[in-house]
Amino acid sequence: MYRSNTCGELRASHIGSEVIISGWVHKTRDKGFVVWVDLRDRYGITQLVFDQDRTSKTLLEQARELGRETVIQVKGEVIERASKNPNMPTGYIEVLVHALNILNKSILPPFTIEDETDGGDDIRMKYRYLDIRRNPVKNNLIFRHKVTMEVRKYLSDKGFIDVETPYLIKSTPEGARDFLVPSRMNEGQFYALPQSPQTFKQLLMVGGMDKYFQIVKCFRDEDLRADRQPEFTQIDCEMAFVEQEDVLNTFEGLTKHLLKVIKGVEIESFPRMTYDEAMRLYGNDKPDIRFGMQFGELNEVAQHKDFNVFNAAELVVGIAIPGGASYTRKEIDKLIDWVKRPQVGAKGMVYVKCNEDGTYKSSVDKFYDQEDLAKWAEATQAKPGDLICVLSGKANETRTQLSALRMELAERLGLRKPDKFAPLWVVDFPLLELDEETGNYHAMHHPFTSPKPGQLELLATNPGAVKANAYDLVLNGNEIGGGSIRIHDKETQATMFKHLGFTPEEAREQFGFLMDAFQYGAPPHGGIAFGLDRLVAILGGQETIRDFIAFPKNNSGRDVMIDAPANIDEEQLKELHLKLDL
Amino acid sequence: MYRSNTCGELRASHIGSEVIISGWVHKTRDKGFVVWVDLRDRYGITQLVFDQDRTSKTLLEQARELGRETVIQVKGEVIERASKNPNMPTGYIEVLVHALNILNKSILPPFTIEDETDGGDDIRMKYRYLDIRRNPVKNNLIFRHKVTMEVRKYLSDKGFIDVETPYLIKSTPEGARDFLVPSRMNEGQFYALPQSPQTFKQLLMVGGMDKYFQIVKCFRDEDLRADRQPEFTQIDCEMAFVEQEDVLNTFEGLTKHLLKVIKGVEIESFPRMTYDEAMRLYGNDKPDIRFGMQFGELNEVAQHKDFNVFNAAELVVGIAIPGGASYTRKEIDKLIDWVKRPQVGAKGMVYVKCNEDGTYKSSVDKFYDQEDLAKWAEATQAKPGDLICVLSGKANETRTQLSALRMELAERLGLRKPDKFAPLWVVDFPLLELDEETGNYHAMHHPFTSPKPGQLELLATNPGAVKANAYDLVLNGNEIGGGSIRIHDKETQATMFKHLGFTPEEAREQFGFLMDAFQYGAPPHGGIAFGLDRLVAILGGQETIRDFIAFPKNNSGRDVMIDAPANIDEEQLKELHLKLDL
Repeated sequence: MYRSNTCGELRASHIGSEVIISGWVHKTRDKGFVVWVDLRDRYGITQLVFDQDRTSKTLLEQARELGRETVIQVKGEVIERASKNPNMPTGYIEVLVHALNILNKSILPPFTIEDETDGGDDIRMKYRYLDIRRNPVKNNLIFRHKVTMEVRKYLSDKGFIDVETPYLIKSTPEGARDFLVPSRMNEGQFYALPQSPQTFKQLLMVGGMDKYFQIVKCFRDEDLRADRQPEFTQIDCEMAFVEQEDVLNTFEGLTKHLLKVIKGVEIESFPRMTYDEAMRLYGNDKPDIRFGMQFGELNEVAQHKDFNVFNAAELVVGIAIPGGASYTRKEIDKLIDWVKRPQVGAKGMVYVKCNEDGTYKSSVDKFYDQEDLAKWAEATQAKPGDLICVLSGKANETRTQLSALRMELAERLGLRKPDKFAPLWVVDFPLLELDEETGNYHAMHHPFTSPKPGQLELLATNPGAVKANAYDLVLNGNEIGGGSIRIHDKETQATMFKHLGFTPEEAREQFGFLMDAFQYGAPPHGGIAFGLDRLVAILGGQETIRDFIAFPKNNSGRDVMIDAPANIDEEQLKELHLKLDL
Repeated sequence: MYRSNTCGELRASHIGSEVIISGWVHKTRDKGFVVWVDLRDRYGITQLVFDQDRTSKTLLEQARELGRETVIQVKGEVIERASKNPNMPTGYIEVLVHALNILNKSILPPFTIEDETDGGDDIRMKYRYLDIRRNPVKNNLIFRHKVTMEVRKYLSDKGFIDVETPYLIKSTPEGARDFLVPSRMNEGQFYALPQSPQTFKQLLMVGGMDKYFQIVKCFRDEDLRADRQPEFTQIDCEMAFVEQEDVLNTFEGLTKHLLKVIKGVEIESFPRMTYDEAMRLYGNDKPDIRFGMQFGELNEVAQHKDFNVFNAAELVVGIAIPGGASYTRKEIDKLIDWVKRPQVGAKGMVYVKCNEDGTYKSSVDKFYDQEDLAKWAEATQAKPGDLICVLSGKANETRTQLSALRMELAERLGLRKPDKFAPLWVVDFPLLELDEETGNYHAMHHPFTSPKPGQLELLATNPGAVKANAYDLVLNGNEIGGGSIRIHDKETQATMFKHLGFTPEEAREQFGFLMDAFQYGAPPHGGIAFGLDRLVAILGGQETIRDFIAFPKNNSGRDVMIDAPANIDEEQLKELHLKLDL
């Protein structure tokens, strides 16, 4: 037996007990006649004491030699500490060691195993197994476990059935590239790894499973952008006999439950906002509503004066920065430079200081009087002491630019608090998105999403105007989930494929199995998928999803620690040749 | 709203309520003035009644036309049934329909959606989404969900952390063939899909995670034998600071818990048996101990007489068949034919009838007297009325043959009861297995398994005799789990690799990351992996694992329903060419 107790559980009540504990040597303090060792495991740290009077000189010498991260087992008596540490759960006691067994020595670790380590990102990733010993990383992995357990319990209690769907599937185009897997059993043919279990979960609904969920790995063979993994985990759900409202209520429940159980936060307000409204008020389809700074559209009050920049613009739109009236000229110039950076792309910025005395001072005083500017303040909900920033130009571009400014300022003002949670639903997304390069439309969500009732006919005449039964769950400015009510009849699905540019033969070849299934009594159904990696990171109040993945991949797609992928060996290469018939 | 209630929940207490329910038309009975429709969903069946007097003639006509598997929504009043069906949870009531909405029609299904269907295996697999609507398949999938939820809850409550490990990894040889995945990010290089997360879970132990579990898909690119899938699911577990006894106790607890919660069975006895003992008593390393018929070795009592067949044999071994003394000569001859079939391979069989009067009658009475045969009966624990069957020859072969006979007879005698559960541990497996063709040894479990204490030295002199800290969990004659205490120091691991025929360079190339990790204070650790597919099938009392997989693959490795894998398209082929540098 390696231990009677863990390093996290001994308390005053254990004083006098003989215990065996095992763990890693975290730190050693040598005071000559006494050596203290902090022994660490997943559960905590327990102080060991070696004392030549009370134990033996041999043991003391051995303890003195213990290097950091050596794995040891000790037997000893729990005693009261002379100087107690109230900040540690085990701080009342220490273990007077009677026997020491070195289980495995350690060479010098490349960085210190401390909450604040001296190791840089690259070295910690290379030695991820050592990084995981550190509390911040270890706790993130345990946090992820807690979130997934809660998700499973909640959904299971609500009648959802966890069904495993295949990983080796037929390639179906779903936006991104599939990873391909050569098949030995079927030479010249290839499996694909799923980008999502979308079609399988729809088939489960056709099969009457009624409520399905799965926490499942999905794969995209795409260039790795910052903090994006080629394999990622999804909470995948589908329900039959539901309208959009049923899905929203169910997953609003899940979100509230998670925030309550995991974060201790009670969510009072869970607004629903149309896509159009989100774009109009925040210039963004995943608005962060932890703070205000809503857009005020100024076309009516700012156009038809002599300021031609505004007169020529499709949209004039502003936001009020709380307390911004106190900015110096230099600070404001910097803001203007910021919006003019290529990454943002605005041509310029008009501003209005809302003075505490109720007067206004703007960069366009030549064109607008106090009465005009009061209307701007009203539209942007600016209060005395605020600064109104106004951008103008093409509507979509301008909204995106102002949204970037809004987020940047919120960040600077400390309004994006990681311990505050503001979820919302964004609904009524457009069904189709115009590819500006090709002039073709493609599905904004995916080709199985149903149009809003009565809008199917619009597809032929004004495809860009068709709204979908599609919804995103947004938390603190991040899309954490997205889904839709699906098409469930063959004819509508065929119409959709046609409008997406598939020939009937292509549709048949790629989605025939689904359309066939729809002929045998497919129920109305819909669902949602959550990006677990991001959800966990946001709940954990951190920025990078990589911090919550045990073995993430680095930017080249290699495992951070195991040097994958491998060069293929000659025999395997030969086999692939044969398969490819070269 | 598609429904106020499911088809499984209406009871007498609902009588008088107005309800909305949706589901599939299961069956229609037309009695002229009245039409009854059985409406089905996942939760049950509710009887609808259409009656021209109480509802309307139009509705009655519509109901009459409803084809099987049509999806409908109805609104109506819950009323008491005239003729109640006490066998159905909803058998007390019916719904008098006021409004009918046809949600989706169905063409004629290729087989009936009934517990006992008229559809053969192939057609049911082709239309798996219809097969899943049948209770037996649906209930199997729900059963699997219950098992996995219980496993997760149990392990989580015991402090195990669910950690996701990567699916796109570096290829490491682990017995079977890896599936390979070409990488776009690293041209000419390939990921592999994991055969198990073995090395990752060991790294998690090095990382101090202490207790890990995961229910995870694994992959083997092997020829598909009967009921074997290229992708399969594993309950994967690992623990640090444990000896074999700790692991056995933990997973004995899990097994008992599952049998209790899922099957309502209390397990009293959970024996541990060495590999040698299992081979000696049952001729099998996964003995079915739901019944006796243990082997009795007869060398001492049957050799050194005048029967040369036995004298020349390495092993003479028998079993007692309960009640077998009543077999006719013809029946015994058939048994002899059975053991001589090429699949079994015995040369012949000696038998002894143990008569009720205490006398014996054998096929070798010429060589053995009553006193001799009484000793055989003692060794095989035969009682009056039993038949002793004796095989002889080379020890291993003979044991395997007698084991086959034992299982066959148990099957015939109805001793392999699907509702009886008899788990056991088989321990002390040999570390290495001799490949008779090449004369090389390879790891019986895997190269990370530790030898029994003090046996490392034997590796050089008598490798076949070295026992491992390896164990299998056997349930009803099936191996449902297997694991080992691992090597946790670099030197022992290097020695193992050497004895397995790796050069130091090969070991470094393939397992360098693990041996490197062992240098930084790897704790003693060990674990186990369960084959979830088989575990679920055995708990479910069924033979084929495919029955418990939503979308299994058929014998050619294609999805039973989606016609995968796909032919690769030209652009993708070109890319693969480039990558392979052809």
